[in-house]
Amino acid sequence: MKQNFAIIGLGRFGGSICRALIESGQEVLAIDSNEDRVNEYMNIATHAVLANAQDENVLRSLGVKNMDHAIVAIGEDIQASILVTLMLKELGVPYITAKAQNEYHGKVLEKIGADRVVHPERDMGKRIAHNLVSKNVLDYIEISDDYMLIELKVTNPIFFNQTLQDLNFRTAYGVNVIGIRRGKEIIISPKADEQIKEGDSLMVVGSTVSVERLEGKMP
Amino acid sequence: MKQNFAIIGLGRFGGSICRALIESGQEVLAIDSNEDRVNEYMNIATHAVLANAQDENVLRSLGVKNMDHAIVAIGEDIQASILVTLMLKELGVPYITAKAQNEYHGKVLEKIGADRVVHPERDMGKRIAHNLVSKNVLDYIEISDDYMLIELKVTNPIFFNQTLQDLNFRTAYGVNVIGIRRGKEIIISPKADEQIKEGDSLMVVGSTVSVERLEGKMP
Ligand SMILES: Nc1ncnc2c1ncn2[C@@H]1O[C@H](COP(=O)(O)OP(=O)(O)OP(=O)(O)O)[C@@H](O)[C@H]1O
Ligand SMILES: Nc1ncnc2c1ncn2[C@@H]1O[C@H](COP(=O)(O)OP(=O)(O)OP(=O)(O)O)[C@@H](O)[C@H]1O
Ligand SMILES: [Ca+2]
Ligand SMILES: [Ca+2]
Ligand SMILES: [Ca+2]
Ligand SMILES: [Ca+2]
Repeated sequence: MKQNFAIIGLGRFGGSICRALIESGQEVLAIDSNEDRVNEYMNIATHAVLANAQDENVLRSLGVKNMDHAIVAIGEDIQASILVTLMLKELGVPYITAKAQNEYHGKVLEKIGADRVVHPERDMGKRIAHNLVSKNVLDYIEISDDYMLIELKVTNPIFFNQTLQDLNFRTAYGVNVIGIRRGKEIIISPKADEQIKEGDSLMVVGSTVSVERLEGKMP
Repeated sequence: MKQNFAIIGLGRFGGSICRALIESGQEVLAIDSNEDRVNEYMNIATHAVLANAQDENVLRSLGVKNMDHAIVAIGEDIQASILVTLMLKELGVPYITAKAQNEYHGKVLEKIGADRVVHPERDMGKRIAHNLVSKNVLDYIEISDDYMLIELKVTNPIFFNQTLQDLNFRTAYGVNVIGIRRGKEIIISPKADEQIKEGDSLMVVGSTVSVERLEGKMP
């Protein structure tokens, strides 16, 4: 079902959301106070408007209150981010996502009614740091505070040509192998008799401790 | 094994990498031309230095060439980002990660020798857009161009109190259920006789098409 989104702020983050929403067939009203940004998104967004979103009359006249969602993607100007979030809330926008610069800013945004507060640079920084420390970790997501999913390149020959059953990851390492990437092929939920080959990457879920123990086996 | 990292630029992205590397026990030399940023990271980084990284003598005197990795996390000043990346390369830093503002900037960074170019805001914008369109999708990662893993909230009563075997996700939807989140508990690699309960979220892997078909079943 097509939904209406307003995006305030067309920096890299807001701009990327705009493109992705349009690609998935949604309607997007994009607002920025910078003319270059508005020109850039003129032919991408459903409507791109040059305006200062801190002006309540602007938000009213653009009909922002009829939107299903608003995304406040203003960055450095914390005051503007807070004020705009507050006005969107008061106009009755049912779901507001707001980008925070830091933890304090995030708390304020939650208190004034943002339904979701996001920290894109912080979260991506964590991901990339993890990846830099162990170059065999190709990707990861935190499933909870204690659980994670990682994609781990198998570099230790003790694993080569062994089946999942032989290696017994669940008992020996406390992790579950949910996938194997082999070149361009991906084997999801591999069977117990599947052999690990040199060059494979394993998609593994487990507690952070267990996963890190397995990482430690890949030099 | 402890490694040495240099981070140039302590914005939200560079700062987050700094914290995460220190937490995982690495040595971090952090450089920023903004005094407030350096003060903020003084007691976090191994060393935090106030300097303009565009000055080659600065990089030399800080011994940046002995680092295992350098991360160029300069944002708006594209010229500085390019120049610093080039100097780090010429100094012989073995692995350079650089943050790009846009696709063109990214291409230049690759051409001058960045080993990895990252687009944190763009990538996080895509993730969040996906999440906004279908609010039942709590998280997702692209495993390949065609495969994805999502966490999907079960909102359709036809799934409630049915076992995985009854529902037969693999045949009926072409996806594999690799986990069930139930409140604070996470059941990894659930057995075939596990029942889905109201309020559960499923962690599901499958082709983009299959996953989206299942998403469509959750109103
Ligand atoms: N009051 C406002 N009304 C409309 N747009 C605004 C307002 N304040 C800031 N913006 C716009 O928001 C966008 C994002 O702001 P800024 O560049 O400060 O954030 P950022 O966090 O560095 O962005 P990103 O990391 O996403 O590139 C900019 O294009 C800016 O013009
Ligand atoms: N030549 C330089 N030498 C050292 N530090 C620099 C230089 N140029 C910029 N920086 C620092 O890099 C940091 C990041 O730059 P900037 O804020 O422009 O990027 P950004 O992409 O908006 O950051 P983020 O999104 O990570 O918050 C800033 O703290 C800035 O002071
Ligand atoms: Ca900006
Ligand atoms: Ca900044
Ligand atoms: Ca910025
Ligand atoms: Ca940013």
